[in-house]
Amino acid sequence: MMKSILLSAALLGGAGALHAALQTKTIEYQQGDATLEGVLTWDDAVSGPRPGVLVVHQWLGLTDYEKHRAAMLAQLGYVAFCADIYGKGVRPKTVAEAGAEAGKYKSNRNLMRARVIAGLDQFKKSELLDPNRVAAIGYCFGGTTVLELARSGADLNGIVSFHGGLDSPAPADGKNIKCPVLVCHGADDPFEKPEDLAAFESEMRDAKVDWRLIKYGGAVHSFTQPDPGFANPGARYNEKADKRSWEDMKQFFAEIFK
Amino acid sequence: MMKSILLSAALLGGAGALHAALQTKTIEYQQGDATLEGVLTWDDAVSGPRPGVLVVHQWLGLTDYEKHRAAMLAQLGYVAFCADIYGKGVRPKTVAEAGAEAGKYKSNRNLMRARVIAGLDQFKKSELLDPNRVAAIGYCFGGTTVLELARSGADLNGIVSFHGGLDSPAPADGKNIKCPVLVCHGADDPFEKPEDLAAFESEMRDAKVDWRLIKYGGAVHSFTQPDPGFANPGARYNEKADKRSWEDMKQFFAEIFK
Repeated sequence: MMKSILLSAALLGGAGALHAALQTKTIEYQQGDATLEGVLTWDDAVSGPRPGVLVVHQWLGLTDYEKHRAAMLAQLGYVAFCADIYGKGVRPKTVAEAGAEAGKYKSNRNLMRARVIAGLDQFKKSELLDPNRVAAIGYCFGGTTVLELARSGADLNGIVSFHGGLDSPAPADGKNIKCPVLVCHGADDPFEKPEDLAAFESEMRDAKVDWRLIKYGGAVHSFTQPDPGFANPGARYNEKADKRSWEDMKQFFAEIFK
Repeated sequence: MMKSILLSAALLGGAGALHAALQTKTIEYQQGDATLEGVLTWDDAVSGPRPGVLVVHQWLGLTDYEKHRAAMLAQLGYVAFCADIYGKGVRPKTVAEAGAEAGKYKSNRNLMRARVIAGLDQFKKSELLDPNRVAAIGYCFGGTTVLELARSGADLNGIVSFHGGLDSPAPADGKNIKCPVLVCHGADDPFEKPEDLAAFESEMRDAKVDWRLIKYGGAVHSFTQPDPGFANPGARYNEKADKRSWEDMKQFFAEIFK
C-alpha cells in the first residue's frame, strides 16, 4: 500500500509533490482518574485511513525521542500515536526518578496494561487510522509495555520490542498473544538476564506464539537511543544495530500489513 | 543497484522486457586431486559484472534444492555459484550416506575450508561477477561450511547461514572473520545444542565480529527445505520461517552490497 501511494504521487506530480507535510497533535485522554497526554503524528500528503503504529516510551516517559520515531513512521506513510503511560507532566529527570516511575508499572502489570490499552483505545478514535491495521512498538520500558499489551489479548497486527525487558510475572499470559511478535535485542545487553531471555523464549514456545527474536552482535541496552540520558557502559547507542533494527521493523510491518 | 536495473528495464522496454532469461552452466574444477562439479546461474537480462552469491549445499550434496535457490538469486539480479564440496558424482542417497559424507568434512575443517575456498576461487573467475561484491550462503551443512569459509579469513562481503551447525573446533579462528555474519536459526532446532549456540555467540563476541542471529519461533531444523529427504520431526519445512529468512537475507544483501 505504501508503495502504491508513493508511486501514484510520483507519477501524478513528480517528486516535488512528495514534500514533507508532517502534522502533530497533542491529545489528552484518561485512564481511570489519571490524565494522560499523547501525541498523534501523520503526513497529510497521505489521504484516508492508513495503517498505524502505537509508540510506547522509555523509562524517562514520553520525550522528543519517541516523537522523532513517530515522525519517522509518518514519513513511511503510517499514522503514529505516542502513548503516555506515566501521566501528563510526569517526565522523570534523573535515573532515580525514572527507575522509580518505571518500577510502579513493572511491579503492577495490570496498571501497565490499563495505561497502554487506554492509549490504544484513544488511537483507535482517529479517523486517520485503519483500525484493522495497527501495530505497537516500544523502547526499553516501552518494549516491556507493548509485550504486556499483547499479553492482555489486545487485537493488534503485531508488536515490536526494541531493547525491552522480556520478563513476565505471569508467563501463562503468553497464551493470550494473538499477533506476531518481533523482539530486537542487543546481544550484549547486560540488563537482560539470560534466565529472563530463556523464560521469554519458553513463554513464546509454550503458547505457540508467532514470534522471532533478533540478537544484534555488539549491541548493549538502549542501542537505538543516541542519548540515553545517563552514562552507563551497559546502555549505549549502536548505529549499526539501530539502523538494522529499524529495517527489520519495516520488513515486519510489510508482512503484517500486507 | 538491483532497483535501478529493474527500473531502467521497466522504463526502457516495459514489463515485457523483463522476461526470465535464466542461464546455467555446469563447471568442473579441482581441489587437490578431487574433481568438483558446480553450477553457475545468472540472468542474461542483466549486463556486466554484478554482485554474486556462493551457495553451499546441505548434507545430501549439491541437489536441485540449491540450484533452485541459485535461480531465485539470479532472479534478484545476482550471479550465483553452487559450490560442490563432496566431489563430482558424490551425491548421498540415504541418511547414513549423507551423515558419513558430511562427517568427513565436519571432522576435518581444513578439508572443508579447502573445498569451499576452491569453489570461491572458481566463482571469482567468472566475468559475470563483480569480485568486490561477493557473499556466501549455506544451508545446514552448507551453513557450517560458509562459517568455516569466513573463519578461514576469506575476503567476502558477508555470509548467511540457514539452519547451519554453528559449532567450531577452533573458536579462536573467529578472529579471522572479516565480514558481517547473519545466522538464521530455528528457535526449536533440536540438532543445535544450547551449548553450541552459546559457544558460537562467545566466539563472535570475543572476536568482535559484526554478527547477528535471528531465532524464528516455531521453526526446527531444515526449515527452508520443503523436502528434507528423510522423515524426522526435528527437521521440517516451515513456510513462515522460510519466507522470513529469505527476506532477512535480502535485507542483509542490500546492506552489504550497497
